[in-house]
Amino acid sequence: MTSTTAGPTVPSAPAAPTAAAAVALRPVPLGDSTITSGFWFERMQANRRQAIRTGYEKLETAGNLRNLRIAAGQEQGEVTGPIFMDSDVYKWLEAAGWEYGRQADDEVLGWIREVTDVVAAAQAPDGYLDSVQQVRGKGERYTGLHWSHEHYCAGHLFQAAVAVHRSTGETGLLDVAVKLADHLVATFGAGKTEEVDGHPVVEMGLVELFRETGTREYLDLARWFVDARGHGIIQTKHDAEPTYFSDRVPVREQTSPEGHSVRAVYLTAGAADVAAETGDAELLAALVRQWEGMLASKTYVTGGIGSRWDWEQFGDHYELGPDRAYAETCAAIGSVQWTWRMLLATGDARYADLVERTLYNAFLPGVSLAGTEYFYVNALQLRHGAFPEEERSATHGRRPWFDCACCPPNIMRTLSSLDAYVATSSTDGVQVHQFTTGTVSGAGATLDVTTDYPWDGTVRVQVARTPGEFELALRVPAWAEGAMATVNGSAVEAVPGEYLRVRREFAVGDVVELVLPMTVRVVEADPRVDAVRGCVVVERGPLVYAVEQADLPGGLVADDVRVRVAELRGAQPEHRPDLLEGVTVLQLPVHAALSAATGPLYRPAGDDPAPQGADETLTVPAIPYYAWANRELGAMRVWFPRA
Amino acid sequence: MTSTTAGPTVPSAPAAPTAAAAVALRPVPLGDSTITSGFWFERMQANRRQAIRTGYEKLETAGNLRNLRIAAGQEQGEVTGPIFMDSDVYKWLEAAGWEYGRQADDEVLGWIREVTDVVAAAQAPDGYLDSVQQVRGKGERYTGLHWSHEHYCAGHLFQAAVAVHRSTGETGLLDVAVKLADHLVATFGAGKTEEVDGHPVVEMGLVELFRETGTREYLDLARWFVDARGHGIIQTKHDAEPTYFSDRVPVREQTSPEGHSVRAVYLTAGAADVAAETGDAELLAALVRQWEGMLASKTYVTGGIGSRWDWEQFGDHYELGPDRAYAETCAAIGSVQWTWRMLLATGDARYADLVERTLYNAFLPGVSLAGTEYFYVNALQLRHGAFPEEERSATHGRRPWFDCACCPPNIMRTLSSLDAYVATSSTDGVQVHQFTTGTVSGAGATLDVTTDYPWDGTVRVQVARTPGEFELALRVPAWAEGAMATVNGSAVEAVPGEYLRVRREFAVGDVVELVLPMTVRVVEADPRVDAVRGCVVVERGPLVYAVEQADLPGGLVADDVRVRVAELRGAQPEHRPDLLEGVTVLQLPVHAALSAATGPLYRPAGDDPAPQGADETLTVPAIPYYAWANRELGAMRVWFPRA
Repeated sequence: MTSTTAGPTVPSAPAAPTAAAAVALRPVPLGDSTITSGFWFERMQANRRQAIRTGYEKLETAGNLRNLRIAAGQEQGEVTGPIFMDSDVYKWLEAAGWEYGRQADDEVLGWIREVTDVVAAAQAPDGYLDSVQQVRGKGERYTGLHWSHEHYCAGHLFQAAVAVHRSTGETGLLDVAVKLADHLVATFGAGKTEEVDGHPVVEMGLVELFRETGTREYLDLARWFVDARGHGIIQTKHDAEPTYFSDRVPVREQTSPEGHSVRAVYLTAGAADVAAETGDAELLAALVRQWEGMLASKTYVTGGIGSRWDWEQFGDHYELGPDRAYAETCAAIGSVQWTWRMLLATGDARYADLVERTLYNAFLPGVSLAGTEYFYVNALQLRHGAFPEEERSATHGRRPWFDCACCPPNIMRTLSSLDAYVATSSTDGVQVHQFTTGTVSGAGATLDVTTDYPWDGTVRVQVARTPGEFELALRVPAWAEGAMATVNGSAVEAVPGEYLRVRREFAVGDVVELVLPMTVRVVEADPRVDAVRGCVVVERGPLVYAVEQADLPGGLVADDVRVRVAELRGAQPEHRPDLLEGVTVLQLPVHAALSAATGPLYRPAGDDPAPQGADETLTVPAIPYYAWANRELGAMRVWFPRA
Repeated sequence: MTSTTAGPTVPSAPAAPTAAAAVALRPVPLGDSTITSGFWFERMQANRRQAIRTGYEKLETAGNLRNLRIAAGQEQGEVTGPIFMDSDVYKWLEAAGWEYGRQADDEVLGWIREVTDVVAAAQAPDGYLDSVQQVRGKGERYTGLHWSHEHYCAGHLFQAAVAVHRSTGETGLLDVAVKLADHLVATFGAGKTEEVDGHPVVEMGLVELFRETGTREYLDLARWFVDARGHGIIQTKHDAEPTYFSDRVPVREQTSPEGHSVRAVYLTAGAADVAAETGDAELLAALVRQWEGMLASKTYVTGGIGSRWDWEQFGDHYELGPDRAYAETCAAIGSVQWTWRMLLATGDARYADLVERTLYNAFLPGVSLAGTEYFYVNALQLRHGAFPEEERSATHGRRPWFDCACCPPNIMRTLSSLDAYVATSSTDGVQVHQFTTGTVSGAGATLDVTTDYPWDGTVRVQVARTPGEFELALRVPAWAEGAMATVNGSAVEAVPGEYLRVRREFAVGDVVELVLPMTVRVVEADPRVDAVRGCVVVERGPLVYAVEQADLPGGLVADDVRVRVAELRGAQPEHRPDLLEGVTVLQLPVHAALSAATGPLYRPAGDDPAPQGADETLTVPAIPYYAWANRELGAMRVWFPRA
């Protein structure tokens, strides 16, 4: 079932626009952008060594591959698991594909071929493929498309096929994807079956498949799917409430994301792909507006999105409570995918800023440091004594897998393609968006980047190869007030929230250095975020910090930590190589709440608020939020009430 | 199918203990306690005139009666609706029963007989009865008892049968109930099928049926069901997470309610009935502990309980956010049922205090003033511009009925039996717990109570009939600092949180008057309730107040209201007979937040909190929270941030 072609036609990276696409920036392929050591490298190594191997095993033990074999007639029995079981296989295949692209590995390639054969065997002669529907649904097709995830699974297959093809050059999975995509093109669209899937992702998948194959019909169908939403199809056909399915408002009219958060941002990511490939400025402008709406009132300080547990939805404006933050790991991934595409389209630094914030503080918390356990939901607060221990672990702790296992392979594919999010190239030169030690090649140049980010703010870029004159752009994060930069030792201006752009005739050995001030920042929220009134967050560099019970002295519970902002600014950083695989902790001056000890739940209010902190000051270490729950599970908070 | 006996054997009131029960207080039957005018009378009239009639029609249009007819073989087709559809019929029958007990009405009796005949026809020859299971479940019994609600429906049938029998003396429904109860006794318990239903209520129902019939086996089975919980039955038999089903911890060991809130308090209410009838002091002590745990960290200021939308559960300790308050109306009803039984068992005023708070502020908001529309979920905050209008109405507004219609008939049966919650009697005399205009008879005395409560704090009790010496006890609410009382004009001490007890040789015409100060109270929460940090609530009498958008001047949104506690204390009450069927509004001095206008969602924090209010003071009316959402739906808040 597996064949080889001459290799990929577009860069080996996710979301690689065609030459004709209306984008400001273009991805740098895996291999041309490499993270070779440091913070993200360690996480990617855990992903390579632990997660992808474990994922391969889970596809077997959780029943995903068995479902496909049953559909193929190779095994007997009933399929198991949720309706979108196939998508876990595809996300894992995508992860394995990108991972192979990072570094060839015969074992991984063997797994890819083996799993590809299972997928291919399950496909119906006319291209249809969805094991659960083929078996449990008795082959009935598209009758409950709002819930059936048939297009959703297809979209993930397309993304996987593109990743495997771009990375390995093998066409086995691509052949399956093309056959299914051709079936979709024959079945859906104007004048055919005019329906949309309840869970977007097929839009991104179809555009990528268009990019890989040049088949224009895939792009046209993606565009049709994007524009078909918000016109009542799901409500009319299935009598279902449209908000959840991103079908209440047309994409071109939406101003603030709503409904199921993963669906919403997968749709906008796909719409951004469509806008790029069709040069649709109106659509892009609508997406800019909606992205700004998300940032204005529906994003956690971590970059996480989707505050409601019920139906995994975006909340109302400013509904961003920390204790019940849903902030699904997949939603963070979807936000990165959307935001990355907005960066490609526009070149605006604010998109790279959000990618950074989200990767460090909303995506990374979703996987344990060992790469073996996951958070589906990312709370920003866990109260002391929430439940007896056995219950708390089950409800709040990291888990090795889930019945609904969308997040683990989604994390895997993101980490295995993370090199691609570091830099881009354009006709002007090379843009470095994220700070990692490694090498970036583009526009004829090669850059060696050295940094101990996020612990240290110095980013050193040395030119290793040069085409002569080009522009080297380095993102200066919006948080980096006081940033400084030098070109071969001479100072240049670095403006937070913009790119430091150095255009010159570069010589090999030239050095551009960016120094981002790693001062402790104390942040508060718009007062309309009721749930964190009177509270502040501590940040340093790109990281949001948390206080976790494991670090507190006896008698002080995380719930009772109170702070004074002026004191927090003097919090001392201390790098602890021994702790949590190496973190810089912040030694926070804190106070213990006096008032939490006793009294009825509701009580007469004084003219002024009761004092919240004792005079005594303790110093307790705060850890980066992403690293919480890697030790004994206990109380944790990110938002600290003022003393 | 309908026959008549000599009449009820225990008082015509819910939860009527037998003569042998270990209780401090005993209910006063409907008819001996009558609410004849005023606040609750108006609500009960709306219930009688609108809700019960509409409910009768809904049982037909929503398919509940059709399901029973299909089970009876009287109609063909598939049953519809959730698995507990029968329980809506029973709750409505209970409501109609109590309503008939309040005031005989041939039309209501006709409905009762008609619906009873449908129920009776559906019953299997051996007593089994559950239309959905009989038809959709193809007659399979008790195989999925954690979800099937078979006992739950039975429990509501028992409560209905007892209500109808106590009120009408007719035995038609009681015969059905007895036949089903006998079947349960034959099927469940030690050495028989050792299982429990996922949704408690059968415990209350069985005890009441024991009280009505004297059949001891019903009480024994109720006790077995209570003690069987928390020992792993549901987890073992169905591989289901036990917390939701109130099956993680034995009732005798639980210290704080958890899991699905309605299930939790229905179980404890049933356990309180068991404790009363078996004289089980250990069980009662466990229930006191758990009730105190609920009050300590899991009760909204309204008395509402159950903060989580996901799985309708109690949250962690102090997880009581106003915007996503679930506070299901049924949970408030269950809390009243449990708390009322604790009052009967102990005679402690604190239980009557919570009944009052919950009835006015957590139960009553669940029904519109017209008695025609309902809240299933009772938010304590609705933000401005949460959604476009059409969406906000669907998500947040009152509804005429629900697919899961547990709340409307639950409200009906509570209002139709509300007279019974006003007073009790004991060997000492009569206790008046709730303040309503009407008549109370007990212990040989009859009292005429006159009050304009909750608008006015004067409660006048005049003796209309007297056995000579008895004790008249009047609850002095814990909130009523400065309460005063007189007996025939002579001052006596009234201590908030206790009963004013007047024991004397009463003569006809004697007057005891209680004057509760209707001052404006400003209340704050324990600082561990993170979601309302820096906020206060305004109360007057038993009522929690809210600011609703409909009352605000142009330009001021409810989200932006800020307050100063010292100013709030001077808020002027104004009775507005024209508004919301007559309410006393509070003219609140408020300020408009300066800071909500602009700026990014997250921003550098100043050393001190940014000022939250402009200097200008506006006066806006606050309305009782129960009356919100009876006009155009708009922003609303109960917790006001300090300026």
